[in-house]
Amino acid sequence: MIYFDQAASSFPKPASVANAMAEAVNEYAANPGRGGHALATRASQMIESTRELLKAFFHAPSKRHVWFYQNATMALNQALLGFPFQEGDHVVSTSFEHNSVRRPLEQLRQRQGIEISYVEPNSTGLIEVEAIEKAFKRNTRLLVVSHGSNVTGAFVDIERIGKIAKTKKVPFLLDASQTAGKLRIEMDHANISMLAFAGHKGLLGPQGTGALIVAEDFQLKPLVYGGTGSYSELIDQPSQWPDRYESGTLNTPGIAGLNAGIKYIVERGIDDIYEHEWQLTKQFLQGLQGMASIKEYGPSLEVKRVGVVSFQMEGLDSHEVATILDEHYQIAVRAGLHCAPLAHDTLQTSETGLVRVSFGPYNTAEEVDTLLTALGEIEQAFY
Amino acid sequence: MIYFDQAASSFPKPASVANAMAEAVNEYAANPGRGGHALATRASQMIESTRELLKAFFHAPSKRHVWFYQNATMALNQALLGFPFQEGDHVVSTSFEHNSVRRPLEQLRQRQGIEISYVEPNSTGLIEVEAIEKAFKRNTRLLVVSHGSNVTGAFVDIERIGKIAKTKKVPFLLDASQTAGKLRIEMDHANISMLAFAGHKGLLGPQGTGALIVAEDFQLKPLVYGGTGSYSELIDQPSQWPDRYESGTLNTPGIAGLNAGIKYIVERGIDDIYEHEWQLTKQFLQGLQGMASIKEYGPSLEVKRVGVVSFQMEGLDSHEVATILDEHYQIAVRAGLHCAPLAHDTLQTSETGLVRVSFGPYNTAEEVDTLLTALGEIEQAFY
Repeated sequence: MIYFDQAASSFPKPASVANAMAEAVNEYAANPGRGGHALATRASQMIESTRELLKAFFHAPSKRHVWFYQNATMALNQALLGFPFQEGDHVVSTSFEHNSVRRPLEQLRQRQGIEISYVEPNSTGLIEVEAIEKAFKRNTRLLVVSHGSNVTGAFVDIERIGKIAKTKKVPFLLDASQTAGKLRIEMDHANISMLAFAGHKGLLGPQGTGALIVAEDFQLKPLVYGGTGSYSELIDQPSQWPDRYESGTLNTPGIAGLNAGIKYIVERGIDDIYEHEWQLTKQFLQGLQGMASIKEYGPSLEVKRVGVVSFQMEGLDSHEVATILDEHYQIAVRAGLHCAPLAHDTLQTSETGLVRVSFGPYNTAEEVDTLLTALGEIEQAFY
Repeated sequence: MIYFDQAASSFPKPASVANAMAEAVNEYAANPGRGGHALATRASQMIESTRELLKAFFHAPSKRHVWFYQNATMALNQALLGFPFQEGDHVVSTSFEHNSVRRPLEQLRQRQGIEISYVEPNSTGLIEVEAIEKAFKRNTRLLVVSHGSNVTGAFVDIERIGKIAKTKKVPFLLDASQTAGKLRIEMDHANISMLAFAGHKGLLGPQGTGALIVAEDFQLKPLVYGGTGSYSELIDQPSQWPDRYESGTLNTPGIAGLNAGIKYIVERGIDDIYEHEWQLTKQFLQGLQGMASIKEYGPSLEVKRVGVVSFQMEGLDSHEVATILDEHYQIAVRAGLHCAPLAHDTLQTSETGLVRVSFGPYNTAEEVDTLLTALGEIEQAFY
């Protein structure tokens, strides 16, 4: 099996990930922070050291600002539904957001009467910083932008966007689901107010992990209320971070796996991983250029992107192409709308969807060649 | 290390749990339901077979009614904050609820003006069915009760409570965090409308797992909005179950581990597990009776409970006792309020907290003897 569905979940993981998880389950499956005994302390230390790792990796102010969730969706919901909006507030976002941003925003529109501007990309599929700047209004209270598109791989310039947000004095929420672990993200330098990401994609951790890192206190309302293992006597959530925003037992084995994934990235070097995936992306894009039936959607070949390429084969449904690749060639890609319908509206691909190929640190040039050969054979068979 | 903190998280787990998790991470870490390829299908099958297992285990109407969350807290929040309350609605609950029930209820009181009755236990610490029945009013819209107390181990008669709820035509939400995997729970027979539980306690799964099972459509509002891998084109959450209530990537390795945990319980037999823990509980309670300095809180020795026993040693703070047991005897117990402050108010133990000892399927009579000996030595040293 050749796996090119890295944008959904990375695979394989470093061997250390499953090992760390098994160790957590077999050696210290106690409840972190909810008892003072040795096993609970060990679980708690694993969680705190992962907070510390994420703090350093993303240049967060302190590990208390790192909050763990089941996935990026939950982290984004905490940031968006928890944000203290008032009726009539305005949000700037883009048409390339995943449903994990768009659906909470639309909820807020319904519930609280907020107004949303979805910035459209330019003709080459890139979201321009100038277009974001123009979308600001006097009542803009939040900017929420996806760092890298899960459809085209195009990514935005977060440092420039961060500067605009800072000038406008509007908090900047970045959805880094497609870029965490692939592109450098420094919350301090890029002026990122809130950073949400999944643990099981570029960070090479297991499913069941995600986080929200918050640079300062935006008076977020907790999304979930319950036991925090601290201040049990309070009727309300405690005010302390991260307790206030992390009710219930955390996913200790998942967080241990995430810890191992991040350590792999730090050791190999994020720039090395990016360069590796970029080479595979270029190789694949160049290969596609010779195929008449294929239309690729995304930035031009010269523009750097994360390792995501989406295309259509003329006259073939995207699911059909994916099924042939899976069943005849044992190549895993993904077809459909990728939970980003507005992006497909923009690209005018909502009817057929797109075939998405995405690369990871363990994919090889030989695998890309095999995929190109397979696509060539499909083209020959159908045209 | 002797581990008696089973009510917080069970330990050890069956060996099959970590194995299933490692297999999920190493062999099929693809995103379930978000791609049609072979690895995604395998992940999806693991999740669906676990739904099926839970459906059968708890007598749920169908696997679509089983929704996965990071923990029981999140499941309870989905049920409570998602319930379509109107201002002035009344909820019947008990003073033995965990903060994962109490804090969401108090939020609802603040946000939506609901009224709550917390039923108090009788003088022996038992919540009486009659007291619950009396608490109903004409405007009661929901009954939420903890099956077993995480402080005293006392459990309520769910079949009788279910009958009352049915007669009153009020949905019955059961928090089975302390009883799932330990006591038989049949949603159909006991007329349970919604069942919330953790995966990492009695069910022997890993942390990072929990579920809500809903018997029928109560028009719950989703707590989290986002990608469901289905109906991506909709602005709103899809109406299909479980998609509507499960946004974002699920914790596949965790669910695989939970699957293994439940299979262990089914093979060994839940009655056998209960009987084993009950014998250990009786042995411990009998041993405590000879110790003058110890006051035990909970039902009398004749009354069956789940394997949880809480006590005070006269003049010693509960944390001090727990620390001595941990450091001098390598015995893990838990001290404090156990996220259930109202229970401690009722027991008048809020100042000092209690030392909680809780038993699991792998604990042995010898371990209980060791604990009793240790407590005897502490008593001798301090009195």
